[in-house]
Amino acid sequence: MSDQKPARANEAVVDLRPATDAQLRFIGVIRTPWVTRDLCPRQGAEDGPECRLVLDPVWQPALAGLEDYERIEVLYWLDRSRRDLVTQSPKGDGKTLGTFALRSPVRPNPIGTSVVRLVGIEGAEVIVRGLDCLDGTPLLDIKPERGSFTPKAPPKPGVA
Amino acid sequence: MSDQKPARANEAVVDLRPATDAQLRFIGVIRTPWVTRDLCPRQGAEDGPECRLVLDPVWQPALAGLEDYERIEVLYWLDRSRRDLVTQSPKGDGKTLGTFALRSPVRPNPIGTSVVRLVGIEGAEVIVRGLDCLDGTPLLDIKPERGSFTPKAPPKPGVA
Repeated sequence: MSDQKPARANEAVVDLRPATDAQLRFIGVIRTPWVTRDLCPRQGAEDGPECRLVLDPVWQPALAGLEDYERIEVLYWLDRSRRDLVTQSPKGDGKTLGTFALRSPVRPNPIGTSVVRLVGIEGAEVIVRGLDCLDGTPLLDIKPERGSFTPKAPPKPGVA
Repeated sequence: MSDQKPARANEAVVDLRPATDAQLRFIGVIRTPWVTRDLCPRQGAEDGPECRLVLDPVWQPALAGLEDYERIEVLYWLDRSRRDLVTQSPKGDGKTLGTFALRSPVRPNPIGTSVVRLVGIEGAEVIVRGLDCLDGTPLLDIKPERGSFTPKAPPKPGVA
């Protein structure tokens, strides 16, 4: 579903090339307290309300070991965002910035990435604090936070 | 393209549901020194070699303002990865972990996220240090690093 808001006069739009064949598969849905976009905070806070990552049950075994991490990275699909803005005017004041200089949800591939605090795991549901997305946002991935993760596979020959 | 490596006996596989209609659009390609997967480091280092994010020229204006950031987040598509492992045995030692407790490229949506150091911008090419992906990896997105970015839009009514 595309955002209905038209581009501002000082924003630039690109003709999107056809989509490639890289297909995402939604692995679940995110439950948050925010049911309209106007109610979503601009940035999540670790003392914000609890949110739930509700996995499709086939993925429940993929959570094994996640409980060892205090902070996790969550990827999700911002399915209401338009995707064709090259420049944007976030303040609406006539000043524009490039899309890649912003963390706006409006981007060619509207993938949200957040680092959140892991509160607990209940079956196929992961409880976290620190998200800022709409209730019902499709879930793409969960990983340990970069900074607290150490590769588990042995080092490779020839690589420092 | 799917990874040809078969699952190990102690790894679990899921029957993937059909892909949804969330389509990614590749916005460019990443040039790195690593031409086979065996040569890629397990984790990028900020003193590692320079790599180039080569954008499709239509996206060049979207870089405006990115030069203000020392560290940027890069998203890319790990197009060689199989996507159906629910648990994995990264060390090959019989011990398994859930896919979501690992940062392995093998995951339902193989999106790589890295925080890298911005070295410079030349036209539609962004030079960075800190990546660990294969040469030719499709590029999905570039954003300012979470920690150094402040929302540019005005605060919303009713949101702290």
